[in-house]
Formats: sequence, structure tokens, C-alpha cells
Amino acid sequence: MSGSKCRVCRGPAIIDLPRHNANFCAEHLLQLCRRQMAKAIEDHEMLEPGDRVLVAVSGGKDSLALWDMLLDAGYAADGLYIGLGIGEYSAESGAYVRRFAAERGLDLREIDLREEYGYDVPTAARATRRVPCSACGMSKRRLFDRAALEGGYDAVATGHNLDDEAAVLFGNTLRWDVDYLARQAPVLPAADGFPRKIKPLVRLTEREMAAWCVVRGIDYQVEECPIAEGNRHLGYKAALNEIERRSPGSKSAFYLGFLDRMAPLLAGESVAASGGLEPCDRCGAPTTTGDVCAFCRLVETAAAHDPIPVELVTGRRRRR
Amino acid sequence: MSGSKCRVCRGPAIIDLPRHNANFCAEHLLQLCRRQMAKAIEDHEMLEPGDRVLVAVSGGKDSLALWDMLLDAGYAADGLYIGLGIGEYSAESGAYVRRFAAERGLDLREIDLREEYGYDVPTAARATRRVPCSACGMSKRRLFDRAALEGGYDAVATGHNLDDEAAVLFGNTLRWDVDYLARQAPVLPAADGFPRKIKPLVRLTEREMAAWCVVRGIDYQVEECPIAEGNRHLGYKAALNEIERRSPGSKSAFYLGFLDRMAPLLAGESVAASGGLEPCDRCGAPTTTGDVCAFCRLVETAAAHDPIPVELVTGRRRRR
Repeated sequence: MSGSKCRVCRGPAIIDLPRHNANFCAEHLLQLCRRQMAKAIEDHEMLEPGDRVLVAVSGGKDSLALWDMLLDAGYAADGLYIGLGIGEYSAESGAYVRRFAAERGLDLREIDLREEYGYDVPTAARATRRVPCSACGMSKRRLFDRAALEGGYDAVATGHNLDDEAAVLFGNTLRWDVDYLARQAPVLPAADGFPRKIKPLVRLTEREMAAWCVVRGIDYQVEECPIAEGNRHLGYKAALNEIERRSPGSKSAFYLGFLDRMAPLLAGESVAASGGLEPCDRCGAPTTTGDVCAFCRLVETAAAHDPIPVELVTGRRRRR
Repeated sequence: MSGSKCRVCRGPAIIDLPRHNANFCAEHLLQLCRRQMAKAIEDHEMLEPGDRVLVAVSGGKDSLALWDMLLDAGYAADGLYIGLGIGEYSAESGAYVRRFAAERGLDLREIDLREEYGYDVPTAARATRRVPCSACGMSKRRLFDRAALEGGYDAVATGHNLDDEAAVLFGNTLRWDVDYLARQAPVLPAADGFPRKIKPLVRLTEREMAAWCVVRGIDYQVEECPIAEGNRHLGYKAALNEIERRSPGSKSAFYLGFLDRMAPLLAGESVAASGGLEPCDRCGAPTTTGDVCAFCRLVETAAAHDPIPVELVTGRRRRR
């Protein structure tokens, strides 16, 4: 960046953003991030002033930046960290979250899967014989929903950024999974038994969030989850990154163009939107999968299984 | 392939097809190609027995294989070659087409852009200041349509294969161009002023078509068009090839899944489908772009321009 100048103030730039065809200094990078988050929140009616938000924090750059940005924007935001039991990775991730909250005097809630539900993600992956990301995602969604409802929060906020959402959209598009496509929105309104769920970072990239953390002095878990390694989602990210490298701006055009022009055509195509939810016999959460919800079945299966060390379920690379 | 066996007859295999998770000998590779083309023709009601087809031949593997396959399947198929004036590349391509037709005693029609319309593709690209593929595609579409109508053919057949169609779909999807998506079908029915247009190879890959040519002894132009080099379409192909390499079958799932599940939801979203076509004041062909159609305007602009040697408009690499 030597010699390049901020587009806004002409001071020394710290980052170049090809999709904006410009460079930015630290101060105006933060301004760009604040404006993009504000636009996402406003365009999709995610929050109103005074709303209480529960932020799903993992210890990575996106969720810690999100927590910081929501507070910075004046929202009342608490954190929830879920201990997934993914060996050293989870231990380190939790430490980053606790330090972030402690240094700023924030309210952090914690749920440890092993202590409170009798399983962890590696064991659940082995017990269900599915990819680890499946059990992990379901556990997090359910526990965030429940904590938000019990805590009286107006919304659960997750740190999904533009790269994440574009990759998920790409995967759903490659399969033309119309049900998933119809539900791929940056906000899911509260419905019977579900809290409102919002993704305020959908207009911001991974790189921009890393820069936010650096400028704001936020230490975060840099490692990727060792179990997710080699999964399809990361393959979709790589493919889109190559497209973006050739044509800067393609990724945001893909994701935002979907929301603008295709999502309206798919409204009403979602299975969940067409009703048919019944409360789970065990936990009372709404479910489409019969008497007992998928999460209660996961807990039952995983908690009955002998604990599996994380090393035995790490991604493709190790198994090859 | 040493030692691997044909899935059908257990004889020595000549090709492995990961998307079918199998190997094939020469005879059963041809059988697979014949069946996939027959399924495409039947599923999309492209042709009926006895239909007369005009095949758009370029000299490449796909269009020569298509002509061969249509004849092999019993259709009455003639060829039309358009001389695009892309230097040595066009000269060689034409020679392959003429040799193919002469050796088999087939009816080949030829149109030379420079001789009959006063321009060539490199000059049109320079004159219109757009990417060369734009003027080239428009010229071919218009001249194939006109020749089919004047010759009383039931359909124009083009050699677009699964890789081509998936890459076009990917590009339209990245931009969520709903109008283009709504028209992306393997068959376009005849409409006022347009002949029926069909793509019988949409269930077959580039590699399968190259293998058809090798087995059937068809010599073809191996070079890619020098002007198309570096265009976006080729970038989309590369991205999908990487996805396919990680998950064989992804590409056909993407394209065929679109036709199956998304195309029906988009029916009626096409601008052209909503009417508004008027005959061009000069040539009488239907147009949405005012009194004079885009092709007549292209001819006027390009024919008035001094001829440009192909070397001056070859793709990105040369211009860097």
C-alpha cells in the first residue's frame, strides 16, 4: 500500500478494496464498515432503535467484529458463546471471546455442549455418521434460538458475511434447492417459537471484517475450524474468490442481485413458509420432522455415544 | 486406462467418466452418447421423425459430432458454415467442415460474412467497440435463422454441450439476469419469424464429444477461437470444472436441476415472451430494438469500417 491514498481524505491508505476500486485509511475503512452494516440493517428492517440483540460469538473475526459494531452503533448487545468441544480449537476460541468481553465489561453467556447436553461436536459427527458441520450447525441454531427466547431478546445476530452468504447461495444454486433458496434471507422474522434472526454483515467481506478487527485492536481466533477443513462450503468460497479475482464486484453482485431480483420470485416456495410446524414432544420447539425434533434426536444419539477425540474426525486432509 | 474395464461389456475401456462413476469401451461410449442425445431430444420434444434439420457447423468437435450423430440417428440433416473471417483460425475451421461433408457426401451450405455482407468479426468488434463474441454471436444467430426459414427446415441445431450450457447458466446466475435465465432452454419453439432452435447435446460433455470424434474418425479444429481467449465464459467454465473435479456430477446436477426445478418458476419472466416484437424495416426479421434490428445496424456499422486484421483484436492476453 506504500504511496496509495485514501479515497475519502487522501491520507495514507491501509487497505485496497478492488470491489470498490479504491483504497482507504483506517478511519474511513471503519466508516465504510459502519455504513454498510447500517444499510443492511435498514434495507432489511433487521433492528429498530432500542432493540436488545443476542450476538452469536464464536471467537472468530466476524462475530467479534459484529458484537463490537452493534455496540458501536448504539444497540444493546450481549454475547452467547457455545463450547462445541472441538479440542484445542474450541479451547482457544472460548479464550478469545472471554477476553474480548472481559476487557470491555460486556455480558457474555456460555453454554458448554458436553457439560449441559452430554455430547460434543466430534462425538455427534461420529454418532450421526454425517458431516460434522451438520450436527454443529443444528446445535448452534437451536441453542441460540432458545437462549434468545428465554432471555427476551428481540433478535439473534450472527456474523455471516458476504463471502459466507455468497458461498451458501452458490451451493444452493448449484443444486437448485428451491426450498433453501427461498429461505436464504439476511433476516428471518420472528415466528411462532422462533426469534427474529439477522445477519448484519451481509454487505461486508471477510477481508473487511479482518481489517475492522485489526484497526479496532480485536484479537481473534485466526485458525479455521479443523473439522470443517475440505468441506464443500470452502470449495464454493474458493470458486467464487477466483471469479471475484477476475471481475471485482462479482460476488456482491451475485448475492445482492439474488436478494433484489430472484428472492421475490421465490417467496412462498419454502416448505417451512407453507406451514406444517408442530411443537416437539420433548422440548416444545417447532419442528417439521415428526413428534420429536431433530435436535432432541441428535442429543439422544450423541449423548449415548462414547466420546470421540477431535483428531479422529478432522476433515478430509487427514483422512486421505 | 490400462487394465480398466467397460461397465457394460467388461472389455478394455478407452475412457473413464467420473460423473457416471464408470469406464467405457469405444462401442459403449458411442451407445452412451446416442442415448443421451435421444433422451434430450425426447424430453424436450426437439424433433420428430422425418424432421429436416439445419446443423450450425463451426469445424469444432461439438458441431461436427452433432451432425454425425443426427445422421446416425436417422434425421435428415444438412450443414451450414459461416465464414467469420477470423484469420487463419477461420480458414482452418472451414477446411475441416468441407472435408467432413465431402468425405460423407453431405449437403453443406456456406455463407462468407466478408463476401456477402461486407464485414468480418474482427472488424465488427472494432467498429462496435464491444467484445468480439457479441457481434459474432448475433451474426451467427441471425444468419442461421434466416437460412433455416428460407430453406424450409424444421429446426436449427447447434452443438452447445453440457459444459457450454452450464457455463452460460452460471454467468446468468452470477448476475441473476432473470430475462436471460427465463429464456435458457435447450429448445426454443418456432415463433413468428423465428425457426425452432434446438441443442441436442445438452446432456453430453466436451470430453464425451471429443471422444465421439476420436472413435468415429472425425478430424476437427482443436484450437479455441483466438478472439474469445480470456473471455468471461471461459472463466465460468474453469470455475465449474474445479467444482466438478471435487464433486463429479455437480455440473449436470446444476444444469439439469435448473431445467427441472427453476425454469418452470421463471416461465413468463422473459421480456421477449411478453411480446412486443415488430418486423425490422430493412430485413423484416422480428426485433425488440426499434425500427431497424440490431443485426442490420451491425452490418451497416461494420461494413463501413476499414477491415481490421485479426491480430489487432485477439483476446485479453495480447492486449495486456
